[in-house]
Order: sequence, then structure tokens, then C-alpha cells
Amino acid sequence: MREEIVERLRGAMREQGVDALLACSPENVAYLAGLVVPSQPLMRWRHAFCIVPLHGPMAIVVVDMEEHTVRSRVPGPRYYVWREFAGDCMAVVAEALRDLGLAGARLGLELDYLPARDYAELRERLPAARLEAAEGLFARQREIKTPSELDLLRRLSRLTDAALHDALAAVGPGSSEMELAGALTSGIYRGGAESFKLLIVASGERSQYPNVGPTERRLREGDLIRLEIFGVLQGYQAGVCRTGVVGTPSAEQQRIWRNLVESKYLLLELLRPGASSDAVYAAYVRKFAELGIGRPISFVGHGIGLHLHEEPYLGGGPDRRLEAGMVLGVEPLLYLPGAFGLQLKDMVAITPDGCELLSNYTVTDTLFPVGHSARAQ
Amino acid sequence: MREEIVERLRGAMREQGVDALLACSPENVAYLAGLVVPSQPLMRWRHAFCIVPLHGPMAIVVVDMEEHTVRSRVPGPRYYVWREFAGDCMAVVAEALRDLGLAGARLGLELDYLPARDYAELRERLPAARLEAAEGLFARQREIKTPSELDLLRRLSRLTDAALHDALAAVGPGSSEMELAGALTSGIYRGGAESFKLLIVASGERSQYPNVGPTERRLREGDLIRLEIFGVLQGYQAGVCRTGVVGTPSAEQQRIWRNLVESKYLLLELLRPGASSDAVYAAYVRKFAELGIGRPISFVGHGIGLHLHEEPYLGGGPDRRLEAGMVLGVEPLLYLPGAFGLQLKDMVAITPDGCELLSNYTVTDTLFPVGHSARAQ
Repeated sequence: MREEIVERLRGAMREQGVDALLACSPENVAYLAGLVVPSQPLMRWRHAFCIVPLHGPMAIVVVDMEEHTVRSRVPGPRYYVWREFAGDCMAVVAEALRDLGLAGARLGLELDYLPARDYAELRERLPAARLEAAEGLFARQREIKTPSELDLLRRLSRLTDAALHDALAAVGPGSSEMELAGALTSGIYRGGAESFKLLIVASGERSQYPNVGPTERRLREGDLIRLEIFGVLQGYQAGVCRTGVVGTPSAEQQRIWRNLVESKYLLLELLRPGASSDAVYAAYVRKFAELGIGRPISFVGHGIGLHLHEEPYLGGGPDRRLEAGMVLGVEPLLYLPGAFGLQLKDMVAITPDGCELLSNYTVTDTLFPVGHSARAQ
Repeated sequence: MREEIVERLRGAMREQGVDALLACSPENVAYLAGLVVPSQPLMRWRHAFCIVPLHGPMAIVVVDMEEHTVRSRVPGPRYYVWREFAGDCMAVVAEALRDLGLAGARLGLELDYLPARDYAELRERLPAARLEAAEGLFARQREIKTPSELDLLRRLSRLTDAALHDALAAVGPGSSEMELAGALTSGIYRGGAESFKLLIVASGERSQYPNVGPTERRLREGDLIRLEIFGVLQGYQAGVCRTGVVGTPSAEQQRIWRNLVESKYLLLELLRPGASSDAVYAAYVRKFAELGIGRPISFVGHGIGLHLHEEPYLGGGPDRRLEAGMVLGVEPLLYLPGAFGLQLKDMVAITPDGCELLSNYTVTDTLFPVGHSARAQ
């Protein structure tokens, strides 16, 4: 288990008064174990648990199929293995807790993840335990990244940014969105990411839709292309978005893009420890209003790390004071229903005296010219 | 909504006696709506529901961020939109049910998906409703594919298979697993898949681990490579796995491979309507025993469709009679801990009088020679 993370969590457990934490979402298992249990995010019944008592040994509950992989990478904790087809995961979790002397303890669970059916079974098998929500405790600790988490997110942001650049430079009129997707994902792996999430390839009239993947649509002169991807390493994610244009953008598109780029630099000036998330969003909304068209979506940034979106949000509330160690995805954007969309997304870390742009490879105040390299600019 | 699917589900609802079904997993929402709500699988709090009453209008509950995308592709049902940051999804679901006259009805829910916290809230907001497990009802209907589902899975299986071939042919000694991953995912998109899941790139000593992704490891003479991917289209998945070799395999590796290929053709002879899933698995175990090393994993195949693994399993139980319209991923394999692994996975549809191999592009009785095309063989 990751010692630094375990110590942080134990501090929070003392405050909340729980005797043990049971991580069961793929993110929080990865947070503790340092790896994503391979098939857990893909098959939701293949539960894995990390059990962290305030005192005493830690434990991992894992399905038989993944035992060998996890043991080889996470030595140390006690292992309790459940059998996939016996469907006895909750029985094994209960047994592990009894074995650890926690059958009558206050247990912090992720009630925003654990399915209702499994919760009911656990409740029944542990009549003396007190089961409490601990998703907030995990979320709060995960907001502030450790130095090694920051290093990883920096590396990942840069390779993701570079892959977007290279993909936009490699296609042209007649290329399909699928081909663009292939160029991008190929670059993501070449750069050293283990996988990726939320690939958005939205060209032409499709650029108005928020989160859509690639189709057979072919690029045409005048198309805008919103291209976004979250590179993934050890479960951590870095989301970057660029907008390209095939040929020459309209004056209106160019005007909107300039506003979004200016918004980004405005936000970078405001992001620092102590800043109010609502105030940062309000400044963005004022800048956006200069355009005189469209309306901003309800947030312009969000925490990011082991999950695509985490607290805190910039906009949408609740109002939060930013802290050093937070990492945010910051994304000025405009979707014009019936017409097109433009978006810009960068990774930003809050530092002790301001912020650090983790991804900044290709953004200029002109839209990315598809089919050309922007490196020299 | 997809009419044919709705009619099937209504038949099953009558049998179970429920008044309405509430689909809330990404798979069952896609089953009904015909599309994956883009960000739903990525952010588990971004719930979407399809509500199918036995009588009366259908409804979709969707987060504000995705309303435009879903409405543009699924016209017809009533829409109820919840606001992301208000966190009021369960309130809107309850309101929709009241509006549809279902606040006191028997409601079938996916209790293996809905988180414990959301279930508790829904329970509280709908004191007169009877909430029942309906995950089994959905699973049973999804086992038997419609003709259009079969067409889609056939197309997807073939393009996935072709992408694996082209990726293995494109690399050689010195290529990294990341480069191989890039070649493969690029081919998946080029072939027309919208995305993919469970990319396995396991070379050399890593080939012994079941579900691992790519690393910076570079291919060396004598390496085995287990390469697997699930191409995805409209939420449907086709899983195919091939094993390649860099240079010349050992006599033992070649002997194991031949056994796995023979196992595959043995299974294809046995797979037909009425066959017992346990008997099919037992035949595989007998064939595997001829090797005299290792042990077979607890299943040799599984249903597949909108989820990576579905019922029925071949092995692992419960014993099932196969039926026409089922689609299975069939995967003879051997992991030798401490040494290497070999695997072969194909997509197979049960037909009225036997079965149809949906993927069969590259498999021969010699291991795939990495860096060479196997097309001519």
C-alpha cells in the first residue's frame, strides 16, 4: 500500500472517528494500492476492497482471477481472495473484517459506489458493525496531490498535449474522425500513457455536442474539430482539449477562440491558494459575456486526478478556497446549438504562490491549423 | 427507444409482475435507448435512467450536460432533466415516476448497479412504491441477440480481428508494448469501431498475467505476446485475442498453441442450441489435460454484448442450455505462473443448427509470426 496515502487517510479517520476504511471504487483502490486492479472498472461485480484499519494490518480483498497480478505488485497487506463464480465477495469481506477484529467496528464505506444489493448483504453479514459513508473523506484527501502524484500528472499532461498536437497535424480534408482518433490514441500510447478515457472527436456540425466520440464523418474545408482526450497512467488522468480548423475559420469563430484563449490566461492569473472558486468562475462568466453570444456552461474547471471530475469545481458550487496541491482541468468553451463548438482544456496545478500550467504545447491565439505542425509557432 | 427491445422487456415484465422497469446502468440504458449516454460510464454520479412502464409513455431522465446529445438521437420519450450541481437526480426520478402515475407501483430496478446511497434516497422519496431487483430480467433478455444486434457484433468482430492482425504484423524486435498498443488502437478506429475496452498487451514474462495493459517493455527475440482488445460500437463489444511470437517459439510453446487451436475447433463442434454449458466446459478441460501442464481457468467462454462478460458462462456454472441468438466469447488459454501465457479468443454466435464463428482472420496452428502478415496463410 502507499504509505504516504495511508498516513493521510489515518489522520482523517481519527477526525471522523471511524475504525477502518473500506475502499471499493476502482479509484480509491488505486489510490491505496498504487494500481488499478485490471478488470475491476470493466466488470462491476468483480469487486476489490482495500481495508485500512486505524491500527493493525491492512488487507486486500480481490477476485481469484486477479490475485496473481495484484500480489505481484502490492506485497505487504493480508490477502483475502473470493471466487468469481461462487459470488461470495461480501462473505469474504465480512470474513476479512472478523479476522482483523473489525466485525463490530465503525466502518467507513463508499456508499456512492457500493451497489445497493451488496450493501444490503454486507449489512446483514455484519450485524454488529456500524457502516458509515466515507466517500467524502476519500474525496477530500484526494483533492491535495502529493509530490509524486504531481510529477505523474505533469508527465501525463505533457504527453497528452503532444499527442493532440501530432494528431491534428497528421490529418487533413478527407480524413475521417476515426482516422483522427487512431492517430491520437496511437500518440497517447507512444508517449507513454497506459490507456485513456473520454476520447472526444467532434468535427463540423458535430462540434456542438459535448462528449461525443469519433464517427466515419470525413473532414471538410471549414470544419472546426474539438479534440479531447484523458491520458491515463496508474489510474491517474490528464484531460486536454484543443480545437482545430480545416482551412480558414470564419471571423466569428476566430473571435470566439480569441476570447477562450484570453479566458484561459485570465484564469491562470486568478488561480492561487485562497482564491474563491465561485469568484474565479464569476470572472470567467464576465469575460465570456464580452462575446455577446451563447451562454457559459455551469463550470469552467474541476479537480482531476484518479477520477475525471473531482471536487473542487470552478463554478457550480459549493464555493471553495483553492489550496496548494490541487490539480484542476480548466476549460473555457462554447457550444452553439445548431452550429458548432469550440473548447480549450488545460491541466493546472495550484502552487504555494500561484499556479503551474501542466499542459501548454500547442495553444496560440489562432485556431490550430489542421494538417500543419504548430510546433514552430 | 428501440421498439423491439421494449416489446421483449414488456413480455418479461408481465411475467415478473412489475409495472415499470428503470434501467440505470450504462449497458441497459444503451440497450433501450440505442446509445451510450456519453459521460455516464465515466462519472458514476451522472446517472441516466430509461423508464419503461408496462403501459403508457416511456421516459428518459438525463443530466443537463447530456440532454442536447440524447434528445437529438432519441426522439420520442418524455424527458426529465436533472441539474448536475444541484445533485437532484433521485428527486427528478421520483418526480418523473409521480408524473407517469407510477409513484405507488411495483418498480424493477438494477440493484447490482444503483449505489446504496441513491437507493436509500429513492426509497425515501417513494414511500408507496415497491422497489424490486430487475437486473436478472435485463440480463436474461440481453442473452438472446436480435438480428440487428447480430449484424453489429459480426461487423465489430471482424474489424477487431483485422486490427489485431495488422498490429502484430506491424511491429518487431525493439518495438515497445506501447507502440504495439498504438498500432492496434489506431487500427480499431480505422476499421470503424467507436472505442474499445480491455486492451491487453502482455509480452515476454508479462504474458503470464491475465488482464494487463501496455508498458514501455520492448519486444525481444523469443517473446510471446498476448494481444487482446474489445472493439466497441454503440456500446456493444467484441473481444478477440491472438498470441504472437517474436522469432521462433519453443517446442513447448508450439505444442501448447496447437492444443489451444484444437480446443477452439472442438468447442465450435459442440456449441449449438441445447448444448449444456457445463458439458462444453468439461470437454475443454479433457482436451486441456492432454497438455499435462498448468490448469484451465474456471471458464472457457462467456456471453458478450453490451457488457464484456454476461451470462451464460461456459464453465463456472450454473449449467445452462445454449440457445440460438446467444453470442459467446470463447477463449482457450494457459497462464503458466513464472513463465508465460498463451491465449486465443474468438466471437461465436449460436445459430439454429450450430454456431457461426464471427472472428477468424488470423488463426493458424502456428503462432502468429510477429512482424509478418499472416494473410496469405
